[in-house]
This record gives sequence, C-alpha cells and structure tokens, in this order.
Amino acid sequence: MTSKRYLIIGGVAGGMSAATRLRRLDEHADIIVLERGGHVSFANCGLPYYLGGVIEERSSLLLQTPASLGSRFNLDVRVRTEAVAIDREAQTVLVRDLVTGEESTEAYDALVLSPGATPVRPPMPGGDRMLTLRDIDDVDRAMAELEVAPRTALVIGAGFIGLEMVENLVHRGLDVTLVELGDQVLPPLDPEMAAPVADRLRDAGVDVRLGTQVTELHSDTALLSDGTTVPAEFVLGSIGVRPDTTLAVAAGLEVGERGGIRVGDDLRTSDPHIWAIGDAVEKVDAVTGEHRLVALAGLANRHGRLAADVIAGRDIRVRDALGTAVVGLMGLTIATTGWPEKLLRRVGREIRVIHTHPASHTGYYPGAEQMALKLVVDADTDEILGAQGIGGDGVDKRIDVIATAMAGGLTASDLADLELAYAPQFSSAKDPVNMLGYVALNAVEGLTPSIQWHELDAAMAAGDVLVDVRTPGEVAAGAIPGSINVPLDEIRARVDELPAGRLIVHCKVGQRGHTAVRLLAQLGREAVNLDGGYLTWQAGES
Amino acid sequence: MTSKRYLIIGGVAGGMSAATRLRRLDEHADIIVLERGGHVSFANCGLPYYLGGVIEERSSLLLQTPASLGSRFNLDVRVRTEAVAIDREAQTVLVRDLVTGEESTEAYDALVLSPGATPVRPPMPGGDRMLTLRDIDDVDRAMAELEVAPRTALVIGAGFIGLEMVENLVHRGLDVTLVELGDQVLPPLDPEMAAPVADRLRDAGVDVRLGTQVTELHSDTALLSDGTTVPAEFVLGSIGVRPDTTLAVAAGLEVGERGGIRVGDDLRTSDPHIWAIGDAVEKVDAVTGEHRLVALAGLANRHGRLAADVIAGRDIRVRDALGTAVVGLMGLTIATTGWPEKLLRRVGREIRVIHTHPASHTGYYPGAEQMALKLVVDADTDEILGAQGIGGDGVDKRIDVIATAMAGGLTASDLADLELAYAPQFSSAKDPVNMLGYVALNAVEGLTPSIQWHELDAAMAAGDVLVDVRTPGEVAAGAIPGSINVPLDEIRARVDELPAGRLIVHCKVGQRGHTAVRLLAQLGREAVNLDGGYLTWQAGES
Ligand SMILES: Cc1cc2nc3c(=O)[nH]c(=O)nc-3n(C[C@H](O)[C@H](O)[C@H](O)COP(=O)(O)OP(=O)(O)OC[C@H]3O[C@@H](n4cnc5c(N)ncnc54)[C@H](O)[C@@H]3O)c2cc1C
Ligand SMILES: Cc1cc2nc3c(=O)[nH]c(=O)nc-3n(C[C@H](O)[C@H](O)[C@H](O)COP(=O)(O)OP(=O)(O)OC[C@H]3O[C@@H](n4cnc5c(N)ncnc54)[C@H](O)[C@@H]3O)c2cc1C
Ligand SMILES: CC(C)(COP(=O)(O)OP(=O)(O)OC[C@H]1O[C@@H](n2cnc3c(N)ncnc32)[C@H](O)[C@@H]1OP(=O)(O)O)[C@@H](O)C(=O)NCCC(=O)NCCS
Ligand SMILES: CC(C)(COP(=O)(O)OP(=O)(O)OC[C@H]1O[C@@H](n2cnc3c(N)ncnc32)[C@H](O)[C@@H]1OP(=O)(O)O)[C@@H](O)C(=O)NCCC(=O)NCCS
Repeated sequence: MTSKRYLIIGGVAGGMSAATRLRRLDEHADIIVLERGGHVSFANCGLPYYLGGVIEERSSLLLQTPASLGSRFNLDVRVRTEAVAIDREAQTVLVRDLVTGEESTEAYDALVLSPGATPVRPPMPGGDRMLTLRDIDDVDRAMAELEVAPRTALVIGAGFIGLEMVENLVHRGLDVTLVELGDQVLPPLDPEMAAPVADRLRDAGVDVRLGTQVTELHSDTALLSDGTTVPAEFVLGSIGVRPDTTLAVAAGLEVGERGGIRVGDDLRTSDPHIWAIGDAVEKVDAVTGEHRLVALAGLANRHGRLAADVIAGRDIRVRDALGTAVVGLMGLTIATTGWPEKLLRRVGREIRVIHTHPASHTGYYPGAEQMALKLVVDADTDEILGAQGIGGDGVDKRIDVIATAMAGGLTASDLADLELAYAPQFSSAKDPVNMLGYVALNAVEGLTPSIQWHELDAAMAAGDVLVDVRTPGEVAAGAIPGSINVPLDEIRARVDELPAGRLIVHCKVGQRGHTAVRLLAQLGREAVNLDGGYLTWQAGES
Repeated sequence: MTSKRYLIIGGVAGGMSAATRLRRLDEHADIIVLERGGHVSFANCGLPYYLGGVIEERSSLLLQTPASLGSRFNLDVRVRTEAVAIDREAQTVLVRDLVTGEESTEAYDALVLSPGATPVRPPMPGGDRMLTLRDIDDVDRAMAELEVAPRTALVIGAGFIGLEMVENLVHRGLDVTLVELGDQVLPPLDPEMAAPVADRLRDAGVDVRLGTQVTELHSDTALLSDGTTVPAEFVLGSIGVRPDTTLAVAAGLEVGERGGIRVGDDLRTSDPHIWAIGDAVEKVDAVTGEHRLVALAGLANRHGRLAADVIAGRDIRVRDALGTAVVGLMGLTIATTGWPEKLLRRVGREIRVIHTHPASHTGYYPGAEQMALKLVVDADTDEILGAQGIGGDGVDKRIDVIATAMAGGLTASDLADLELAYAPQFSSAKDPVNMLGYVALNAVEGLTPSIQWHELDAAMAAGDVLVDVRTPGEVAAGAIPGSINVPLDEIRARVDELPAGRLIVHCKVGQRGHTAVRLLAQLGREAVNLDGGYLTWQAGES
C-alpha cells in the first residue's frame, strides 16, 4: 500500500484540527495544508481582545506555526498559498503561491475544505473604509489604525463579535457608536433577554442606535438611514459572515439553500473524495432537523477531527447542531443554546416559555448576582428547544448544563431532578436549572398556567384582571399599569375583594405569583401567572 | 370530604420543602410542622461561613420563620417541639413542648419524617468539650466560644464540612490543626485528586495530620493516637453524620443496612401512611443500584417536594442518586459526582480512568487557571460512573455538566460531542469536558491505551521502559525515576534509540503522550500512555 496524500484547504480551526488528527491516525500519509493567509492555527476568537489590549502580545494569538506543526506533526503547512481550483476528475488542486505568483498542481486521495466564511460587506459610498475582522492580517490592519489613536469608533452590527469589539474599543478609551439594523442587540436572543445588554452598553456610554443602518461613510463620520450623522474615525463592520463557497461552487459541489456547502453525516460533500467542515458548511439543526449555518469554533474543531476519522476509514456520524454560544460584555455573561422563542413562534411551533431570575448562588453568601434565564419547551412533548441566560457569574454554567440535558434527551421536567453541585458560594440547594424544571413541572401538570409578557395587553383588553401580589413598597417603585395590588400574604383574607373574571397574577419574578395562583385556584378562582413577573415584563417593554 | 391532616417532623431542608409544597397542592389541609430545635428553614450550609465571619449577620441564616411561614403558607410551625413517639396503629404522634414540658397527641392522615442526621461523636476522655455543627443552637454555642478569642483550633475530620470549618477558622485568624484518620483529606475523592487540597491547607499554615486520630481532649490540647499533642483551645468534630432513626426504629419502620430509613421509590416507608426524606433516609445509588447514604441539601429539598406530591395523590417516582457535591477551600474548588475509582476497584468493577489538566479557559486570554479532572468509566459499556475535579474557576461547571450527562445516559465518548458555550474567557473551543470525551474515544477505539499512576511501578518492574517525551527543560525541573527522555518532536528521528520492549510514554499531562503513542504505534512499537502524565503521577505519589 502506497502512502496516502491528503490535501487540506484552510489552516485554522477546522482545517488544522483535521490535519493533526489525520497525522495521529496515519503516520505515513503526506498531509499538506494550504492557507491563503499569512498564519495558521491562530485564535480567531481572541482577535477583539488583542485589539482592546486585554491580550497584550500578538504572539499569544498564534497557537501554532508552520514550523511547530512541521516538527511535531510532520505536516507540510504552506501559508500565503491559495487553492485556486479543484479538478475533481483528476483529483488535483491548482495552487498559487501568493508571494511568488507561481502555480502548481497538487494531487489528493482525500481533500478537506475548511475555508471558513467571509464577513458580509454591504455596498455603500465610502464602504472601503470599513474594516472587518477575521484573520491576523485584518487585526494588523485594525491595530495600525488604532495606534493612530482615533477618538471615535463606529461598530456596525450588534451580534456577538460586534459586541466584543464595542467592549474592547471602550476599553481602549474610544467613544463608540453601535448601529444595528434590527430593533434589538444580539439578534439570536429574544428581545426581553437582550434588553439588559443594550442598557449595559448605554450605561457604559456607548451610543446604541437600533433599527437603523449606515448608508454612507465619510472621512470621519457616518450617515445613518434615519438621517443622523455619527462620529466614525474608526469603523468596524460586523454584520455577519457568508460561507466561503467559492472553490466548492466552481467545482460543482452541492451547496444548500442557506448558502453553505452541503455535507452528509460523514461530512462528505457531493464528491466522495472531498470533505468539508467549519463555517463554510451547513449543519443539520438539532431542534428542527433543517439545515442551518452555525459559525462556531467548537463545531469547526470537532468536525475537523471527525472528517479525519472518516478519511482514515473510521465509521462515524456527526451529531446535529445546537449552536451553544456565549459572549462576555462589560461584566455581563450572555449565553444561548438551541432556538429562541421568536423563531419558533415564526415557524408555528407550539411552545411553552419559562422565565426565571435566580441568584447565581445562595442569597445569604456574599456576592450573589441575579441572572435571567429563559427556557423554551415543546408544549406537547416537554422537549427542551432552547435556553438563554444573562447575568454575571454562573450563566455559562447553567446554559452548558441545559445544552448537555438537551444532548441527553432530557425533558424540561427532568431538569428538576438533576443533581448539581451545591455549596453556598456556587449555587442553591435548588440550582437555577432545577428551578426551571420545577416551573416546567407545574406547567406540564397544569398546576400553574402562565402567560407571557407579550400576551398581557391582549389578555387585559379581553377583560382579565391583573393582580400584583408584591408588597406595597415594591409596587411604589414601579408597577404594571392597570394592576391592582393584593400582597401574597393577604390573599387568603382578601380574596373576596378581587373582581370577577380570570385573574392574571404577577410578582417580581414569578415565584410568589406561582404560590398565589395555586392558592386562588383552590379558592375557586381562575388564575394564571405572568411568567417571569415584573422583571421580564419590564425588559420586554423596554 | 373533610380536610386532611398532615404532620411533618423536622422543619428544615426536607421537612419544610414538603410543607410548602403540600400547601400549594392542598389549601384546605391542616399542615403541622414539628421542630425540636429553636429554628426552622435555616441555612445549615451557611453555618461554617457565619462562624468565619464571611456571612456577617446571624439573621441571614434564617431563611424563614414560623411567623413568615404561617402568614404565607398557613403552616402551623411549632419550634422547640419534639415528636416523641409514633403510634402507627392510631395514626398519632406523641408531641412534647420542650419549653413547658407538656405532652399532647397529634393525629395524622399522612406523616412525613425529615429528622435529618446527627453528628457522630466518638467516645473519648474529655470528648464533651468537642463541638459539632448541625443547627443554629450549635452555631450559637460555637460562636460563644470563638468570641472568647481562642488562638488555636482543632478540627477533627477532613470531610467537606470539616474543611469548610478549617477555612473559616483560618479566616478568623486561628492556628488550626486538622486531624483525619484516613490517609488523605476529603475521603470521597481519590487520593491523587485530594493531594493538592492537603498541599493548599499546609501552604495556608494548617497543621494537617493524616492517618491518626484524637484519643483524648485536655483543657486546651488534644492527644493523638500517634502519641503527639496538638493545641486545641477550640475543638470541632466533623467525622460524619448518622441518620436520625430514633423515632423510626421505635415505631418499627424498616431501616436498611446502611442505617437509614428504608423508603420505596415513592418515598413511602414500610408504613403506607408514613413518608421519609432527607439525611435520615437511604437512597438508591445511580451507579451501583445499591442503597447508600447521601446527606445533601439538594436531594432533601427535592424529595421533600416529591413526598408532598405523592401524599397529594400525584404519581411520581424518585430518581436514583448520584451524590454530586462541591466544596470551596482557600481559592480551590473541589467537586465530585458518582463514584471514585478506589471504591469501584474495591467492588471489582472493570473500569477505565482518565485524568486531564485543562485550563479553565483559553491560555491566550488572561487569568486562565489549570484544573485537574478525572473521569471514571465502565470499561465495557463506556458508561460514566463518576467524575472529580479540582482547581479554580469553572470546576463546578464541568462537574455539573458531567453529572447532567450521566443523568441523560450519555457515555464518556458522547462528551466529545457536547456543544458547550465557548468564548475565550469562558472555555476553550474544545471544552475540558469535550476533551475528556476525546480521550475516552481514543481509549474505546484502542488508539491510545493508558496505564494509571498506581500501576507504573509494577509495569516498570515487569520490564516496561518509561519514556519521558517532555522537553529537557521540563525534565530538569523534576522527572519520574527511571525514565529516559526523548522529546516528542524528536521521536521520529530517534525511535531507533529506544530500548526494546513495551514503552510507557509520559508528558506533563498526557496530551503529548497521546501523540507519542500514536506515532510509536505506527512505527511498530508497543506503547501506552501514562494517564494524566507527570502531574497525576506526582499527585498520586505525594
Ligand atoms: C473575531 C472573531 C471572534 C470569534 N469568536 C468566537 C467565539 O468566541 N466562540 C466561537 O465559538 N467562535 C468564535 N468565532 C468563530 C470561529 O472562529 C469560527 O467558527 C472558526 O474559526 C471556523 O473555523 P473554519 O476552519 O471553518 O474557518 P477559519 O478558522 O476562518 O479558517 C479558514 C481559513 O481558510 C483559509 N482559506 C479560505 N479559502 C482558501 C483558499 N482558497 N486557499 C487557501 N486558504 C483558504 C482562510 O484564509 C482562513 O484562514 C469568532 C470568529 C471571529 C472572526
Ligand atoms: C455545617 C453544614 C454544612 C453543610 N453544607 C452543605 C452543602 O454545602 N451542600 C449540601 O448539599 N449539603 C450541605 N449540608 C447538608 C444539608 O444541610 C443536609 O443534607 C440537609 O439539611 C438535610 O435535610 P434534612 O431535612 O434531612 O435534615 P435537617 O435539615 O437537618 O433537618 C432536620 C430537622 O429535624 C429536627 N428533628 C429531628 N428529630 C426531631 C424530632 N423527633 N422532633 C422534632 N424535630 C426533630 C432536627 O432538629 C432538624 O432541625 C451541610 C450540613 C451542615 C450541618
Ligand atoms: C490546535 C490545533 C492545531 C489542533 O491541534 P490538536 O493536537 O488536534 O489539538 P489539541 O492541542 O487541542 O489536542 C487535542 C488532542 O490531544 C488529546 N488530549 C488532550 N488532552 C489529553 C490528555 N490529558 N491525555 C491524553 N490525550 C489528551 C486529545 O484526545 C486530542 O487528540 P485526538 O484528536 O487524537 O483525540 C487546531 O485546533 C488549531 O489550529 N486551533 C487554533 C484555531 C482555532 O481553533 N480557532 C478557533 C478558536 S480561537
Ligand atoms: C425554602 C423552603 C421553606 C421551601 O420553600 P418553597 O416555597 O417550597 O421553595 P422556594 O422558595 O425555593 O420556591 C420554590 C417554588 O417556587 C416556584 N418558583 C421558583 N421560581 C419561580 C418562577 N420564577 N416562576 C414561577 N415559579 C417559581 C417553584 O416551582 C417552587 O414551587 P413548587 O415546589 O410548587 O414547584 C425550604 O426549602 C427550606 O426551609 N429551606 C431552607 C433549609 C435548607 O434548604 N437547608 C439546606 C440548604 S442551606
């Protein structure tokens, strides 16, 4: 048996993971990695923090070099080398050395495509001035501009990377304007979960402009579609990425309707000798079973290894993707897995939604921080469809636990039984995730029906009565218009005061509301709980 | 239908959770909670931190009072009231008011026992002077002694609560001696995982005495079984708890061989009108299916609610128990779930063990801390049997994720596919839990066999050759006796230098060792990896 020849296009998250794993599986193969840029194996995810000065050394971003990969893994890593075309018939790739311009042809037994994605650039006058952030060349360009010490910055797009850039530009001392076409920051989240993020940004002095877009860039300002002008000496665009399918399309490989390369559950493209992984590829969504783009480093790394496994003859199947993600922003942690409520409603799925506002750990131990959690559940099967969290310490933990529960096929009610590590400084005897399970159980069992913040107006218009069961002191600090106040501890005595009709009860977070609903139901009243209480309503209305 | 009468014995974690849930399910019942001590619904788990001054207000420990529970839940809560005997025939309990001494009889339709557990007190001369910590009366006694400002303290028993007490006494400025009969601290952990805890204690100035016990207490010193005397103005015993089965035994209820009340999966005792929950009760172990004592607040709370559900006529089944636990100690987080290696080996289970030493988050983002993780896996089925973690930030998260994976029936290999939230300050593109899955996969697939630190001596005695693949610089700082050094990156060139026979390779943590094993195997050499590398070996030998 002659040794195999493996060609890999793209030398970062997916590509290099495939290359190193291939080497561990096949010491005798020729493994060639082609990378168009000047660097391989770099920390894409660290780029914003390098620009902000949080990561001080540029060299920390370079996790491996062609030399280190050569000596450890005997990989033939070629930077500034572009794969120009694939000849599927001949099983060759046309390669161009971007320094010398020389072209050559490389044969392959197996070809792995991990070309990533390219930042979307909306065409607009002056748009050339807009920087984007994807690789080391980009970061060098941005750093060069920042070293000239601009005072104002414009970030276009309030997604995860956009927000990381805002944080880092603020950290550098710039006055930052954030422009987002949608009417909320962090489009993957539901609006009431994202609202506190916009508040935090504004508190930090960021000029947050929602529901508008940049139409023109001038030398140090930008014109928005709402007619206003904002300062913009430094401009960074982060409005999303598009799978880089140039090579795949030219080679006639199948591309899906989301614009990514189509692969099977063995990561093989429509050509049996070509595999594809990473941001360039469509994943199968774990919740809907449909194709979806999920541009995350974890999946790129994992699929790189899996593609190597298949190529080396192992029998593997890729799991469907949840898309768990997290971002840190000015002391907030915001994390999500699965689907948000808004998209599931849009596709008409019957869902149940739970909001809670638990403390990161017991209230009696110093330093507890309140977080908001949201669980989205299939109304028929109790299957967990998605979760979102925002707060300080421990938000990432809760979302990871829920993502794991989803992977294990646990239902929302099952969360009540999880045995999670508890000591006063880490959690509560009922962890926030357990508590989501408790609330889910009460819904499943029909004990405490609830309505959502966005359903309140219609319900009240239809004649429901809103009963605020908080204390008068809490009510004085802010209340939902049209509510009447009967504190929980007085309901037994004052139930006869309550107007006829269905009652919607609410407290601050939903917990006392639950006890109130149980009490009222047994006293013969129809009652539902306003899910998430005043806090969720307030965030939703803001 | 006349209203029901529910009697609950014990008014803290399990008992009060049953009472509040019962009220939410049955507004019309009479619910009476009998509590022998002076307080209900207090934070047992906070007691050490109050003594240490971390929790400043005693009132923070009292989460509810008889009055607050009366007005919110219409509970009849009686403190300083002891249940003295159960008459199962008559369905009554003999009750004594501990203040007046008066006795009365209370009838019940359903009786819930949540009497907890009592600290074990070894008989010894002077033993009366030893304090224990279980309730508010205990904490008041201890605080009174501490306010006299002793300079030295002796803590007997190095379990979770013992260590919390050590931390808090150190925090108060006392010179602390810790005496533990076993040869390691934290007996639920495996020795190599617990070793860094003892180091941390010693670094903090604690005099840690292992493998010895206290035999006599004098006025301000203690005599140990090894003949030495240690200072001991303040003495706290924490050598474990025993289920409080006094009432249950007297009433002829079934008690299991572990000494706890036996209940079915509906939490009913051998009497169909009596339920039991909490520390007093034996749980069914999720790993072995056998009965086991698990004295944890999460289960007490959960089972309190479940008992209420059954009593109110709902159809529920209790899950088997994993026993997930965590303790914070001087900046370390130590957490565990399921079974340790040592116990599984003792019962002869065929297991596979994995040690890793990942960073809490990416190395390039500031503040990453190294942790040690251990996964114990069924060698045939790949079922996860247990996990342990020690380190700083994020250890609790990883153990919670693994406990959730266990609850969801995921195998060790499945951990590779978990989609966990990743951004540079929270994790790595391959989360430490994913990495455990990677290593597990390599074991399952036979790619990289490994041996454990405690198997090394025997293997070398049998003729295996130990190859240290770290750099010469690392080797110079400390190496395993008898190893030869060939750095990973030189193996390809120097393979012919290696002696004949089976090779055991090792690096610092096992990662380079894995690559070395793969390389050597394909170069025709039999090789195994020393699991966890030098760090695990060092911890095990210490
Ligand atoms: C600023 C930033 C922050 C991020 N933060 C996070 C985060 O916190 N968490 C997270 O999960 N993900 C994050 N991501 C996303 C993550 O980096 C990507 O999902 C991951 O890198 C995708 O891996 P890939 O191999 O598909 O593509 P890439 O890592 O982008 O690698 C593709 C490489 O292929 C090369 N290439 C393309 N075409 C050719 C060709 N024809 N010839 C030769 N080479 C070619 C490109 O030059 C590129 O270097 C972030 C991304 C960015 C840009
Ligand atoms: C110092 C300390 C720290 C802890 N830390 C943690 C931790 O960090 N994490 C964790 O998970 N767990 C921890 N625990 C354990 C946790 O507190 C227990 O698992 C939990 O309280 C058990 O609940 P329970 O209802 O069974 O017993 P308890 O909460 O102890 O309540 C039992 C009550 O019953 C009363 N009683 C007994 N007999 C009678 C009778 N005959 N008549 C009337 N009343 C009676 C007792 O006075 C007692 O108040 C800790 C415990 C202690 C003591
Ligand atoms: C780092 C990179 C080169 C891949 O190299 P790699 O050697 O495959 O990956 P790692 O260094 O993470 O090591 C993982 C390997 O070590 C093994 N391993 C890790 N810890 C181990 C331990 N304690 N014991 C034994 N084996 C261990 C794993 O099983 C895995 O081997 P496998 O794939 O054969 O199962 C590639 O992922 C890359 O270029 N990354 C940077 C770019 C990037 O990911 N960007 C996005 C995020 S910022
Ligand atoms: C606190 C204690 C009295 C129990 O009271 P409780 O009302 O049952 O419990 P909580 O205050 O935690 O509230 C939980 C209830 O609120 C509900 N809830 C919580 N958050 C909610 C929200 N946002 N929306 C709706 N319902 C919510 C839960 O579903 C649960 O109700 P259920 O049992 O009917 O499902 C009892 O556990 C106790 O005495 N604890 C202190 C002792 C102790 O636990 N010690 C050990 C640890 S230190």
